[in-house]
Amino acid sequence: MNVTVRGHTRHYRTVAFDRTCNAVRLIEQRLLPHQFKIVATRDFRETAAAIRDMIVRGAGAIGATAAYGLAQGALAFRGSNLRQFSRHVETIYQSLKTARPTAVDPVNAMAAVRAAMRAGATVEEQQALALAAAGEFANENVLQCKAIGRHGARLIRNGMNLLTHCNAGWLAFVDVGTATAPMFAAQADGKKFHVFCDETRPRSQGATLTAWELAQQKISHQIIADSAAGYLMQRGEIDLVIVGSDRTLGRTGEVANKIGTYTKAVLARRHRIPFYVAIPLSTIDWNLKRGFDIPIEERDEREVLGAWGTVQSSESEVQGSRSKPGKRVYVRVANPSSGARNPGFDITPPDLITGIITPLGIFRPHDLWSRRHELGFVG
Amino acid sequence: MNVTVRGHTRHYRTVAFDRTCNAVRLIEQRLLPHQFKIVATRDFRETAAAIRDMIVRGAGAIGATAAYGLAQGALAFRGSNLRQFSRHVETIYQSLKTARPTAVDPVNAMAAVRAAMRAGATVEEQQALALAAAGEFANENVLQCKAIGRHGARLIRNGMNLLTHCNAGWLAFVDVGTATAPMFAAQADGKKFHVFCDETRPRSQGATLTAWELAQQKISHQIIADSAAGYLMQRGEIDLVIVGSDRTLGRTGEVANKIGTYTKAVLARRHRIPFYVAIPLSTIDWNLKRGFDIPIEERDEREVLGAWGTVQSSESEVQGSRSKPGKRVYVRVANPSSGARNPGFDITPPDLITGIITPLGIFRPHDLWSRRHELGFVG
Repeated sequence: MNVTVRGHTRHYRTVAFDRTCNAVRLIEQRLLPHQFKIVATRDFRETAAAIRDMIVRGAGAIGATAAYGLAQGALAFRGSNLRQFSRHVETIYQSLKTARPTAVDPVNAMAAVRAAMRAGATVEEQQALALAAAGEFANENVLQCKAIGRHGARLIRNGMNLLTHCNAGWLAFVDVGTATAPMFAAQADGKKFHVFCDETRPRSQGATLTAWELAQQKISHQIIADSAAGYLMQRGEIDLVIVGSDRTLGRTGEVANKIGTYTKAVLARRHRIPFYVAIPLSTIDWNLKRGFDIPIEERDEREVLGAWGTVQSSESEVQGSRSKPGKRVYVRVANPSSGARNPGFDITPPDLITGIITPLGIFRPHDLWSRRHELGFVG
Repeated sequence: MNVTVRGHTRHYRTVAFDRTCNAVRLIEQRLLPHQFKIVATRDFRETAAAIRDMIVRGAGAIGATAAYGLAQGALAFRGSNLRQFSRHVETIYQSLKTARPTAVDPVNAMAAVRAAMRAGATVEEQQALALAAAGEFANENVLQCKAIGRHGARLIRNGMNLLTHCNAGWLAFVDVGTATAPMFAAQADGKKFHVFCDETRPRSQGATLTAWELAQQKISHQIIADSAAGYLMQRGEIDLVIVGSDRTLGRTGEVANKIGTYTKAVLARRHRIPFYVAIPLSTIDWNLKRGFDIPIEERDEREVLGAWGTVQSSESEVQGSRSKPGKRVYVRVANPSSGARNPGFDITPPDLITGIITPLGIFRPHDLWSRRHELGFVG
């Protein structure tokens, strides 16, 4: 999408490949929204480190990064011995796979790259095929997001107020995003609307990443505390909810997404507000039989007990406070002797979901299974 | 309640009067939970400033502070001219009343003090009556909270997990509190239970004040993000919700309370979890006919866009960050170019409320009006 830095607007993908330097180019997401910076990883080890250290995050984005990282590593190989080359590729694969051990996207993306490479008879041919396959994976991700945008944009009418939770924007994919894709497409169609971004404590991805994306795209928006959506719904100020998903169960239509998503679905149902989930096909899990079986990560309690931000001012009544504005720090908000619970995700049942926006159209959650072959299920 | 400072445990009230020095003694709530400090206001102007600057906050607490401030000002009068004395009292009254212009508790509290003073024939008699009336107001507040505790404690059984939102604890009253009163009473009865405190963004009163109170009282508790309660309810980890109220409509049973209360009530209903509201009688508004008519304050957007806390560490990858640990600062969390909506309260309808815990027992919200004479309605 477009990013404006010091008055200059340019198109960026979250993940791109630089052939000249054999480098993966990434938006340094840990600095957003306070600083926009592109980093280039010079070899596959740096690419793996970028995934591990969360310079790049989001399912689609780390999938493409791993695919490019595998091609990058393959291209760096000097020689024509295919057996040595294969061992080298296996090392790269393991390095990129273990960078985020619980994620499934890097594994799937690299499987596609390795499958394509098999058609090459020489090292050189396999190197070229690896890069082509990685590029194709990234392009396919963009095309899927654009298709989600086309289908979802039909739901957005002039003058509507939307709600979204967390960040399922273009920073989490190669471009365009999922929950935000219908917004970008509706904007391109000339529609006017307003988006409320849930802050999304404890990591505040809504207040930081989604708000930054919407600001860059000049879409009218306001951040709200996670507790405020119910109030806005009571007052008739929300017409449509669109969120993303980390995993959607193809057999049941249950949706795992950032903690707080379920609450928004319950509120939307009470107020008869349509609640949609936008997903690429890779997010569908065709194996699991019950949402309750999805492992829910309990994250570090310090996320709940404090916040990361840039220092704006010191409290005058506390003596000796001289923290300079602009520094990025972690502050402890909570009572020092109290602990926290910090589940990272929750499960939204299908009866609360109006529709699942996929690249192939909008499906009722209960219909995913009966239409599984259409949706790419193999088994 | 009891507070432990450097190993010494002592009983404190949120608001107390020191006859020897003619001073109002207050807990400096802006420093909590990071520092416990008692401040003494030396004259009624300092007492008004303490209310205005939120050294003391919470309906019952500012009511008692204003009552004591009026007595303090009256006692400082030198002379025997009743007419001059009356003018002096009027000045004090106006000063304390305008300290928090939208609050109703200081006005009601001072009305009680002035009514009592009328029985005195001399300045000296009126001064003594003022102090006695202020003390009686504060004691009555404590007795009401204790009665709420006795009635509410019956709802808490051994092994239960409770949820509360914001701070309706003893810091918001003279002592004991409302939503926390049943917890303190159940603990005194020897019951074991666990409390989840909603963080309560944007001002985090749950993570700071309620968590601090529960820690001081050694009640098992954990802070959760406001978005996490739905997840815990899905997993059967919450058995009972108790919250406070800023204003409860006697005619309809609607409850105005901190933003996010309504969301918890909607979730509790879906999961068939009892949802109670604990209130002193002074919180009942017998006049308003519709919850929609309660003015909802839209607060400063900076509350949503950042957080107050003490600096714990600097982010190493950002150069030049040298903020020292322990300093209390405001950090901007959100995207710098984005704005926010910040409604301070929401309205919970009576159909979502299992019961209203009052000093006179537990009432169904729809029964408040039919039992209004019992509950102190005059009209």
